Amino acid sequence: MREFKKLMPYKEAFQLMINDINEIPDVEEVSLDEALGRILAEDVKSPIDSPPFDRSAVDGYAVRAEDTFQAREYAPVELEVVDEITAGMESKTEVTHGKAVKLMTGNKLPKGANGVIMQEQVKREGNKIYVLRPVAPGQNVAFRGEDIKKGQIILRKGQILRPQDLSLLKSVGIKRVKVRRKPRVGIIVTGDELIEELDERALESGKILESNSIMLKGLVKQYFGEPVFYGILPDDESIIREKLEKAKSECDLVLITGGSAFGDKDFAHRFVNLLFHGTTIKPGRPVGYGERVFVLSGYPVAVFAQFHLFVKYALAKLVGANFKPAKVKARLTAKVSSTLGRYEFVKVWYEDGKAKPIRKSGSGLISSLVESNGYITIPEDSEGYLEGEEVEVVFY
Amino acid sequence: MREFKKLMPYKEAFQLMINDINEIPDVEEVSLDEALGRILAEDVKSPIDSPPFDRSAVDGYAVRAEDTFQAREYAPVELEVVDEITAGMESKTEVTHGKAVKLMTGNKLPKGANGVIMQEQVKREGNKIYVLRPVAPGQNVAFRGEDIKKGQIILRKGQILRPQDLSLLKSVGIKRVKVRRKPRVGIIVTGDELIEELDERALESGKILESNSIMLKGLVKQYFGEPVFYGILPDDESIIREKLEKAKSECDLVLITGGSAFGDKDFAHRFVNLLFHGTTIKPGRPVGYGERVFVLSGYPVAVFAQFHLFVKYALAKLVGANFKPAKVKARLTAKVSSTLGRYEFVKVWYEDGKAKPIRKSGSGLISSLVESNGYITIPEDSEGYLEGEEVEVVFY
Repeated sequence: MREFKKLMPYKEAFQLMINDINEIPDVEEVSLDEALGRILAEDVKSPIDSPPFDRSAVDGYAVRAEDTFQAREYAPVELEVVDEITAGMESKTEVTHGKAVKLMTGNKLPKGANGVIMQEQVKREGNKIYVLRPVAPGQNVAFRGEDIKKGQIILRKGQILRPQDLSLLKSVGIKRVKVRRKPRVGIIVTGDELIEELDERALESGKILESNSIMLKGLVKQYFGEPVFYGILPDDESIIREKLEKAKSECDLVLITGGSAFGDKDFAHRFVNLLFHGTTIKPGRPVGYGERVFVLSGYPVAVFAQFHLFVKYALAKLVGANFKPAKVKARLTAKVSSTLGRYEFVKVWYEDGKAKPIRKSGSGLISSLVESNGYITIPEDSEGYLEGEEVEVVFY
Repeated sequence: MREFKKLMPYKEAFQLMINDINEIPDVEEVSLDEALGRILAEDVKSPIDSPPFDRSAVDGYAVRAEDTFQAREYAPVELEVVDEITAGMESKTEVTHGKAVKLMTGNKLPKGANGVIMQEQVKREGNKIYVLRPVAPGQNVAFRGEDIKKGQIILRKGQILRPQDLSLLKSVGIKRVKVRRKPRVGIIVTGDELIEELDERALESGKILESNSIMLKGLVKQYFGEPVFYGILPDDESIIREKLEKAKSECDLVLITGGSAFGDKDFAHRFVNLLFHGTTIKPGRPVGYGERVFVLSGYPVAVFAQFHLFVKYALAKLVGANFKPAKVKARLTAKVSSTLGRYEFVKVWYEDGKAKPIRKSGSGLISSLVESNGYITIPEDSEGYLEGEEVEVVFY
């Protein structure tokens, strides 16, 4: 059995990988109802000004500001209410000297008016109002195009569409958008030791219940992709080669787990021209990448780390997503030591500004993933962090 | 037009609402492939020990620890390799005095052995190995049930199922789980001023492009629910009453926007026995709740705040989710002032430990939602926060 001669530093491997991935060109036009979580494939410009007209920003009275300049608590200005409108209506009455029109938030400012006074700030008696303080020109008015100008870019290519983004699109009259096709991500799991059905005798003899496929399917869905599962394969060179070729031809990206090390039965890496194989990450050292294929470990915790350190960024680049996971500052509740020369992926439970490291021996212990909600990383040149030290947590 | 006589403090209104919501009883059994993002409806126990047997935690040689106690760099202990196995295999050879079995991570520990030495730490010559330092009993062994014991609860009722949770379930042989039925959430939008198609002349006359429905559908999907849209209704008392009754009878929760204030055309609140109507939240003051119906504002930014301050928690309770949004500490990049007596919802852009407040005048400006990725809240008794002050951000 060969060993890795040299582990490539994480950032160097990451750069080789990310430079090799190209945005997929295919674009789909979808309705807003289908667009949640999809990635915009082009900049979107507003077809209208917003607001589309000068409108009131409050419920109150549209006035000529000049009429109110002399208004004081002890010397109110009297104005006559010449029209009253409700939401969605338009007053055809011009506001002339000494007049006012009652309106609601969002109503178009009537001709002649240049300011609005809030209804709470006047006294009303019959069709008269008494204004107690001056209204400045433009006060409580949202001017045409103040929020968005016609032709202005309102959402950029790469935007991951959220509910409020869809609302913005609809508010300017856009009902369909161009989004990136979802990348098809082939998932291949290999290993003679894997079984799918609970069988205590098989487990006793050394078999393992396969659990990487369901995890990878879920992660791919979370990060912009559409998983395509190619099954659990035995450690058979020709079967693996054939399925890998099929997955490569049908998918935008392929993830193959197991067989990434250099054991006699580790075939996967032999059929792909890898840009790197073996990096400083821990767990997950044997990770390899080339030709849009990730060769991943067999142990779930290693696969999970490899996904978060490499694969999710590949998926984001395939769809051209403006993707930058939020990094959150936290204080460690316990010391975390790290091996010099390794880029460690440490699971943590983040709560109330504190990060509790979740470390258990063995990269197979999935329960450690379940007990965590994010991770920190420790670069190669660090021996770790002290209790109470500030770290940056990335949420899953 | 009546005004709100008294605004109920946010926390008091929240408690009335949350106490009134009951977990929906219906449970569905789904395969793991369908379970991502669903909520576990019962505690799940492991049907097996994990590991299911004492197994090696490294690639190396299974030995009797006693045989190695005298091993030193200058006086290696020689052992005979009597068997070699690969992943998923079991050695039938007993490890007796002076013997060793070569095995891989995850292999069952052969009979007689009680420790494993890593392959990097021995010299191999033919079928002999030379052990350079002592192996402690139990060293590099993962014992049966060390991670999970048979019958132990591995995931609790209320868990929001993530990829790693599904992986854990599959790793102990569980392939189907009981999850809460998704709540049906009726969405009703009201307002004579609303149009659906871009029509510049209609906009000029004061109409508004409706954009709450697409936002609420997206938010409901993000927070455990299934939206059911009942359309955009005119401000017609009998039509609103009829649709509201229909939605109440068909759905677990109903959201009705527009008409939550006390204008002549604000009908929605008249058909529901509200536990509260009018709270200190800003924006979104006129929010009301009763009989599993939320009466929301018409302005998208107010609706968005009402959803995050009330509705998402109602949805989490309906499905019994163990839901607690992460609060992230950040320093404000600018002063934020707040009205005494109001519970303010302030949108922010969080990045690198800093929170930039996104404030624009007018609760209708959806672009302010688009420019933010989370929010902070300012309680009723505070006049706001200073630049540089530490605040807690909740991500959308």
